[in-house]
Amino acid sequence: MSELIEIERKFLVVSDAFKSEAYKRTQIVQAFLNSDKRRIVRVRISGEEGFLTIKGEPSTDGVSRFEWEKQISKSDAKALLKLCEEGVIDKIRYEVKSGAHVFEVDEFFGDNDGLIVAEVELSESSEPFLKPKWLGKEVTGQPKYFNAQLLKHPYKSWNQ
Amino acid sequence: MSELIEIERKFLVVSDAFKSEAYKRTQIVQAFLNSDKRRIVRVRISGEEGFLTIKGEPSTDGVSRFEWEKQISKSDAKALLKLCEEGVIDKIRYEVKSGAHVFEVDEFFGDNDGLIVAEVELSESSEPFLKPKWLGKEVTGQPKYFNAQLLKHPYKSWNQ
Repeated sequence: MSELIEIERKFLVVSDAFKSEAYKRTQIVQAFLNSDKRRIVRVRISGEEGFLTIKGEPSTDGVSRFEWEKQISKSDAKALLKLCEEGVIDKIRYEVKSGAHVFEVDEFFGDNDGLIVAEVELSESSEPFLKPKWLGKEVTGQPKYFNAQLLKHPYKSWNQ
Repeated sequence: MSELIEIERKFLVVSDAFKSEAYKRTQIVQAFLNSDKRRIVRVRISGEEGFLTIKGEPSTDGVSRFEWEKQISKSDAKALLKLCEEGVIDKIRYEVKSGAHVFEVDEFFGDNDGLIVAEVELSESSEPFLKPKWLGKEVTGQPKYFNAQLLKHPYKSWNQ
């Protein structure tokens, strides 16, 4: 499936405990051919795979969003990264099971070093899920945590 | 092949004679997820096929340009067109043989009604080609003839 409406909730992370619970760990590098939130165009290298992802404007509650994604070769992704807007997001994604759900926990590096954010995909925004003990405050829909925003206003500049 | 450097020359068209010489005729609708010439992201429906195309900045002579293209479903293309920047390019593309080359002749409609432009793809910019009798002035590299520019400054506004 290449096209869907994604429903996701996003949280801060209060401890490193998720690292020992993770069943998968992937290096991700990504940048944007368009960082306008009405028409995000993202190029990503995730491990040995490339992806091109297009996202529409988030819903007013920030929970759901049109998303279209196509796998591309790693070499195509490398060529497309060269055309992207300035700046690159560099992170490790940990996948952690919690009840019936999977949390994707992103540990950021570079200008966003120190930031750790967890996301869970739901079938509807009110769907209950098991809350891991390392899960902190919800930040769903807060633009400053969007990856496209983290390039323009990185985490290390937030307290300045 | 999905990734290449394209070498193209572009010309105005001085008569309708190309229409009777065309071996193929395709309705094209396209719009842009990014119309910045450094990182064009174009969504196109061409007949019954969809395409997503990404182009880098043209060379200083305007002849060559990085281009990456992926065929996508028509329904995916329709969904992505809804996210695009305002405005749609609507044209019929005629394909016309001339010696060893094929000219793509675009007849524009809507706000660009009256504009007809022909392009030929070459293996190098100095490659000779047979000039059809309906071929007019060369406009290679002139930004006002870029499709992304034709949305912002359509042909019908040029004499105002």
